[in-house]
Amino acid sequence: MVTSRDVARLAGVSQMTVSRVLQGSTKVAAGTRDRVLAAMRESGYQPNAAARTMRTRRTATIGVVVADITNPFYPQLLEAVGRALGEAGQRMVLWNAPDSGGTSALEALDEGTVDGLLFTTATETSPGLADAVERGQPIALLHRGLDGLDCDQVTTDNVAGGRAVADYLVGTGHTRIGFLAGPDLPATARHRERGFRDRLAELGHPLADPLVARGGFSHDVARSATRDLLSRQDPPTAVFCANDLTALGAVDGAVSLGKRVPADVWVVGYDDIAMTSWDSYDLTTVRQPIADMSRAAVRLLLARIDDRDRPARVEEFPCELVVRGSTAGTPQPSAVDT
Amino acid sequence: MVTSRDVARLAGVSQMTVSRVLQGSTKVAAGTRDRVLAAMRESGYQPNAAARTMRTRRTATIGVVVADITNPFYPQLLEAVGRALGEAGQRMVLWNAPDSGGTSALEALDEGTVDGLLFTTATETSPGLADAVERGQPIALLHRGLDGLDCDQVTTDNVAGGRAVADYLVGTGHTRIGFLAGPDLPATARHRERGFRDRLAELGHPLADPLVARGGFSHDVARSATRDLLSRQDPPTAVFCANDLTALGAVDGAVSLGKRVPADVWVVGYDDIAMTSWDSYDLTTVRQPIADMSRAAVRLLLARIDDRDRPARVEEFPCELVVRGSTAGTPQPSAVDT
Repeated sequence: MVTSRDVARLAGVSQMTVSRVLQGSTKVAAGTRDRVLAAMRESGYQPNAAARTMRTRRTATIGVVVADITNPFYPQLLEAVGRALGEAGQRMVLWNAPDSGGTSALEALDEGTVDGLLFTTATETSPGLADAVERGQPIALLHRGLDGLDCDQVTTDNVAGGRAVADYLVGTGHTRIGFLAGPDLPATARHRERGFRDRLAELGHPLADPLVARGGFSHDVARSATRDLLSRQDPPTAVFCANDLTALGAVDGAVSLGKRVPADVWVVGYDDIAMTSWDSYDLTTVRQPIADMSRAAVRLLLARIDDRDRPARVEEFPCELVVRGSTAGTPQPSAVDT
Repeated sequence: MVTSRDVARLAGVSQMTVSRVLQGSTKVAAGTRDRVLAAMRESGYQPNAAARTMRTRRTATIGVVVADITNPFYPQLLEAVGRALGEAGQRMVLWNAPDSGGTSALEALDEGTVDGLLFTTATETSPGLADAVERGQPIALLHRGLDGLDCDQVTTDNVAGGRAVADYLVGTGHTRIGFLAGPDLPATARHRERGFRDRLAELGHPLADPLVARGGFSHDVARSATRDLLSRQDPPTAVFCANDLTALGAVDGAVSLGKRVPADVWVVGYDDIAMTSWDSYDLTTVRQPIADMSRAAVRLLLARIDDRDRPARVEEFPCELVVRGSTAGTPQPSAVDT
């Protein structure tokens, strides 16, 4: 039977350090932690998860819940979260929860196989989420916030992002503007729409209902909605899409009709996923600072795990309009100052 | 203290059924399982993971290891695996292991928080993998196989896929053919290259070294390599890429030089990710049957968990050339029959 003493000897560290690594302490340098873990594997040391959890109450593992990993935004966000967790000496496990909304992850938290959870796609209908927060479980929201839920939340100012796009499009002379709204539930989609809609109205060019398409966050739905919009007698001259995936669908809808972007129609997305900078799309979009957001969320969650009684914090990051080739004008001061 | 008896009463099932759900038995209908899980949550029942694992030795949770979720192929594969696991009454947890190669997942398996592991991106250097297989841990490989590793493996015939592309390009008249090879380690990349290279040689048009670019599986590297190829005095008339992500990079490299695909250069990818069918790319590629492969891998892994002594099986699925707009010819019988 291999003991932690053997591991310590093999790794050339004290038994206390081995114990700290097992407890997921952030006081161990990454290099030392790697050496201890390597020694554990090499020696065949098998800490008993159950016994360890009971003893230390820490697994150094954080669960992350995501609703749709086939939307390329989420793999990028998860990569950033994984990096932030790694920097903090924590491991990441993922739950992709298209239907169940993270029920399995909440079970794992209750069972103690993870120390805390980051929800990236929470909505008001996420089953069990509000209940778990109320019971004091360490849970933080990243990307999608939830009004009225008393837990740590890291988001971007999606209202300001929507407003910035309205300013940009009206400031460059557009008046017939289309909008591909996202689904109703996510706060991100609702806030982007509110900012965009309110600012357009303030600028004297309120959104026209027939130029608004409502649907899911999918490429296919967006492509088909854009084909409908562009086939109208009075097609929009610019289309704003509530996320990048749908903006790529909008570009492809235009391409499928033989239209050119931006000569025939401008397209603007939201998120700044890697693909938007690829030559075939070269998409104007609104950038979320996902590396900074991820680090902030990890920091808040780890602080919460250490102290469940600290007051919940909401951190909202600014976002930034990134102008590329899918639009043909530079941002201008808009007609109306606010 | 809520007991499993309370859960059974609330769900309207027998205590045996509750126990079966806890054990991850496949004998419980999905609807019943959902009802029991809902009752557990509603009643606040907290099975002790440790005690439960010791009692039943089953968590009904399978870990899946992936190396790069930002390559869109993997989210699609994970979605298919998640669906196959759901059909089998199993939960999925994911490890994204760009550096550590699944060490954390292997630890979770040793500790009993998952019942088995599916590796989707195994290579000969995956740390601890061969050792864990040797110790009899339930591990199956999906997508990337490993010669000489005695475990269940589900792959596609990547050699045949590479050969099919060679037949297609030579059969449509190409003789100056470029190749963007993948990294050296993954069996998928090596087998695709071997099939493509051998078949081109058999057909009398061996690959010319200067037309082969070797690099990682990234869009940026592929874009830049393609720009180099197409800037030559004698540019290739067609480029085969070892996966779709790099083929999208090759198209963008051509676009960035003002070249048209397929008028100036044909591009062929491999995998058939969703994006290849989008209008802006419309990419000819080789399709892997990921839904069938995922179900096969889940079936083999669950059988292995039930019986660790059964002989390991290797299942190899056929793949299929899908011709789209990035090439301009229909497949023809090639000049040389084999």
